[in-house]
Amino acid sequence: MRHLLLTLRYRGTNYHGFQVQQNALSVAQVVQDAVEAVFGARLDVKGCSRTDAGVHANRFALALRTESGIPCDAVVRAMNVRLPEDIAVTGCREVPEEFHPRYSCTGKRYLYKIYNSPVRDPFLSGLALHWKYPLDENAMDAAARQFIGTHDFAAFCSAGGSVEDTVRTITAASVAREGALVTFSVTGSGFLYNMVRIMTGTLLEVSRGALAPSDIPRILAGRDRAAAGPTAPPHGLYLDAVFY
Amino acid sequence: MRHLLLTLRYRGTNYHGFQVQQNALSVAQVVQDAVEAVFGARLDVKGCSRTDAGVHANRFALALRTESGIPCDAVVRAMNVRLPEDIAVTGCREVPEEFHPRYSCTGKRYLYKIYNSPVRDPFLSGLALHWKYPLDENAMDAAARQFIGTHDFAAFCSAGGSVEDTVRTITAASVAREGALVTFSVTGSGFLYNMVRIMTGTLLEVSRGALAPSDIPRILAGRDRAAAGPTAPPHGLYLDAVFY
Repeated sequence: MRHLLLTLRYRGTNYHGFQVQQNALSVAQVVQDAVEAVFGARLDVKGCSRTDAGVHANRFALALRTESGIPCDAVVRAMNVRLPEDIAVTGCREVPEEFHPRYSCTGKRYLYKIYNSPVRDPFLSGLALHWKYPLDENAMDAAARQFIGTHDFAAFCSAGGSVEDTVRTITAASVAREGALVTFSVTGSGFLYNMVRIMTGTLLEVSRGALAPSDIPRILAGRDRAAAGPTAPPHGLYLDAVFY
Repeated sequence: MRHLLLTLRYRGTNYHGFQVQQNALSVAQVVQDAVEAVFGARLDVKGCSRTDAGVHANRFALALRTESGIPCDAVVRAMNVRLPEDIAVTGCREVPEEFHPRYSCTGKRYLYKIYNSPVRDPFLSGLALHWKYPLDENAMDAAARQFIGTHDFAAFCSAGGSVEDTVRTITAASVAREGALVTFSVTGSGFLYNMVRIMTGTLLEVSRGALAPSDIPRILAGRDRAAAGPTAPPHGLYLDAVFY
């Protein structure tokens, strides 16, 4: 039995996240349809994470087991013929039997993109949060750096997450501007439910002066979701990298 | 009577070009609906050009006449509240009575974007031509520069154009690569029907070696549409600037 790891890139606008759901089209369901056409059987696919509706992936990893001998480069080509234009398989390699795309993962990087301009950009509709008022990316960057380290992120977790342990390690976090695009980049060992979106909502509170960068350690220590900022909408969020 | 010039930016994917058409949604129709809501009357809007279905605009200009005293910055804000996410008004200014967005135009710049990579990019679906095989951007650039000057572009004009005079002046033309994105940029006094898309199709023939850059003067001189390359699809084309 071969164990294949496929990397995907997808625009999440038309999907209710990665995970298969009843009565809603998911990325996994569309991928499984293509897998069935390519491998001749409906195979189970295991993803590296659930993503929310409207969230994008520059790099997402999923694994499947097959008896098929089809070479990896042919898998990439055949899958891309069958997938819709908003999903692409970017790579395929064999992994050991015990590999698990979620539990073998040593870290992930997320980006949150904000288009900061009085007038929206029609080409970024669904691809970045549009923010009309001036953003202070320096204050946001100073606040983002307060997330670095091993902390209890209970204040940055939406109800509905099933985990008990809310301690996570963030290895890199920063905010940078390129023209009108302000991007929050955060890398860590793992992330809680809605964690990056709540971090982003909190950075936006810092930008408008409602919170200071120095408030972040206090919010972390308080473990109170209500002390952090609102949950930023999904369409600015990108799973950017998965590390194994 | 005030005469207002509005600049637009739009993603053309969902529209059958700028011009109002029967049984097909056009950018002009959607703009006229917003104009009616903002100005309280269904006003005629005159565009700087017709664009084909699926073609985009980084900058498009249209003019309208109104008795309304609503200030220009308020026009921009009010229009953007009413327009869908794939169209934005980026500016508004008053122009003289005799101004015409099409006939007062001294030149235009178009871009044609090609995503050159074995695997498509889901984020560029509808926004760039996907070209799987290696492109020779240096040969394409050498060929593009042959378009510069005043020439009869009859070989680069689709049937269906109504003009008799097919002489146009191209002031700049080049091809450049930025990573996987290969962009043809062309500026001129005016363009014939499908001219930039046929130029692009011809540059693609040069890239694959079916034509040489030195063939361009011969194709221009021959005035035979069949000697030029195929018409590249609309979704890579952007009206990038309109000069007055």
